Amino acid sequence: MNKPDPAAVVTIPIKKIDHTGINSADDVVAVEEPLAIRLTWPQLDKAKHVIRDIAVTMRTPGHDEELALGFLFTEGIILSADQVVQVTRPAGDDANNIVLVELNDVPALTTDQLGRNFFITSSCGICGKASIDAIRTHAQFDVRGDEFMMPAEVLATLPKLLATGQETFAGTGSVHAAALFSPAGLCSEVYEDVGRHNAVDKLIGANLCAGRLPLWNMGLFVSGRSSFELVQKARMAGCAMLAAVGAPSSLAVELAWESDMTLVGFVRDGRFNVYAGPARIA
Amino acid sequence: MNKPDPAAVVTIPIKKIDHTGINSADDVVAVEEPLAIRLTWPQLDKAKHVIRDIAVTMRTPGHDEELALGFLFTEGIILSADQVVQVTRPAGDDANNIVLVELNDVPALTTDQLGRNFFITSSCGICGKASIDAIRTHAQFDVRGDEFMMPAEVLATLPKLLATGQETFAGTGSVHAAALFSPAGLCSEVYEDVGRHNAVDKLIGANLCAGRLPLWNMGLFVSGRSSFELVQKARMAGCAMLAAVGAPSSLAVELAWESDMTLVGFVRDGRFNVYAGPARIA
Repeated sequence: MNKPDPAAVVTIPIKKIDHTGINSADDVVAVEEPLAIRLTWPQLDKAKHVIRDIAVTMRTPGHDEELALGFLFTEGIILSADQVVQVTRPAGDDANNIVLVELNDVPALTTDQLGRNFFITSSCGICGKASIDAIRTHAQFDVRGDEFMMPAEVLATLPKLLATGQETFAGTGSVHAAALFSPAGLCSEVYEDVGRHNAVDKLIGANLCAGRLPLWNMGLFVSGRSSFELVQKARMAGCAMLAAVGAPSSLAVELAWESDMTLVGFVRDGRFNVYAGPARIA
Repeated sequence: MNKPDPAAVVTIPIKKIDHTGINSADDVVAVEEPLAIRLTWPQLDKAKHVIRDIAVTMRTPGHDEELALGFLFTEGIILSADQVVQVTRPAGDDANNIVLVELNDVPALTTDQLGRNFFITSSCGICGKASIDAIRTHAQFDVRGDEFMMPAEVLATLPKLLATGQETFAGTGSVHAAALFSPAGLCSEVYEDVGRHNAVDKLIGANLCAGRLPLWNMGLFVSGRSSFELVQKARMAGCAMLAAVGAPSSLAVELAWESDMTLVGFVRDGRFNVYAGPARIA
């Protein structure tokens, strides 16, 4: 199980107020800090390097390199870990909050598309249909999960398993978690972050580095709600199933059906709802 | 109280699975669709207009104009409703998902800063301190709440009041809500969205349009967790207090202290925690 990064939490003095009155106490809160993801690649003549800030995300420190690579991969900016020469921290005061990713060639998206990517915040079009079409274009893996049958009784136990692995949440009650599962239960570390998309990027980035993509015949379990963005990230990694403790949005359901994925919501109290692809539930 | 926009929810067929077996059912999910916020302003010679896509946010339809204006205001791109000539829907297939905001002059942020704003997702710097400094620079209102004393017993009732006004959530269990409060209880409509930042932007945009900014001696109540971004938005509107059903992040607490705001978390079951500015709790 994951050990929480010491930089992931901070203890602060607070006042607790209830019907008995006011009490001073110490409380543990999850750290939130910006992380700039900076990309560099050689120009065509190899004489110079281009440097571009790709995104700044508000994240909980820890697994920063995985977060950066997972973000670049799920946004379609890099296609494989082979493109990455090295990941470093630039010198200086802000070193803790900048990750510099050096590529061996120009990124998969053109500079124009990179510019567009900035402001679209993981959506690729102006209407939902355009977004879904764009993901279909960018995804390099099919979704494969023909052999993946998930026993309903195992699925129902995932929240408990996730909570066991969520060490930061136990203290703060305030971070999202993501982990992979197989028919036997959870089958990866639990990744945590104040942003649910970051927790998923950390997980996918770690699997990218370890050469474990695509995540065929595997499911992604998340602690919160499932948005379009989370289904998109799971889909980019080839994941056949997304299961969430919370509710899905309309566009999450639509993208799951379009991608031949299984989407499960409200996994709690031994029950769940299947919003797309019920054939994979045994 | 708010009536939910008919476009805010959609009914879909699902499978409900529990220990008794599989049952087909209809479920109501919150709609998530991209909204492009497009800005146009006259060039210096007034002969032509500049047009720029400022952001695409994944939102629940309804109160789109308020969302766009609230976003532009809380990001420091416009300073008042007087700068806005009109808000229109461009003709075409994507009209439902584009809002065109026409300004009477160049925006408050320069084009370079606008470019930077895209990819920083409401954070203005590479470290937390830089982010907080930048907000101090951009905010046009002080925070004033000297006369704002919030009775603890009224604060504890806010979750119940919010739930009463949350019509979309009642159906879907999947949207965030935001409303203003005074010492007497909730004092605004409840705004809902799949994105918590959108719910807050809708609320602040509506108050901007109605000439009710700054929100001095008022509090903002939100259904989820409080991040840096939410404290930032409340602070840009001059709000003295942010209260949330969930936990705050470290940077949310830091920004609240720096801004002389009161930050309250875990408002539930008749109790709450005060993370900053306890002097405003009576």
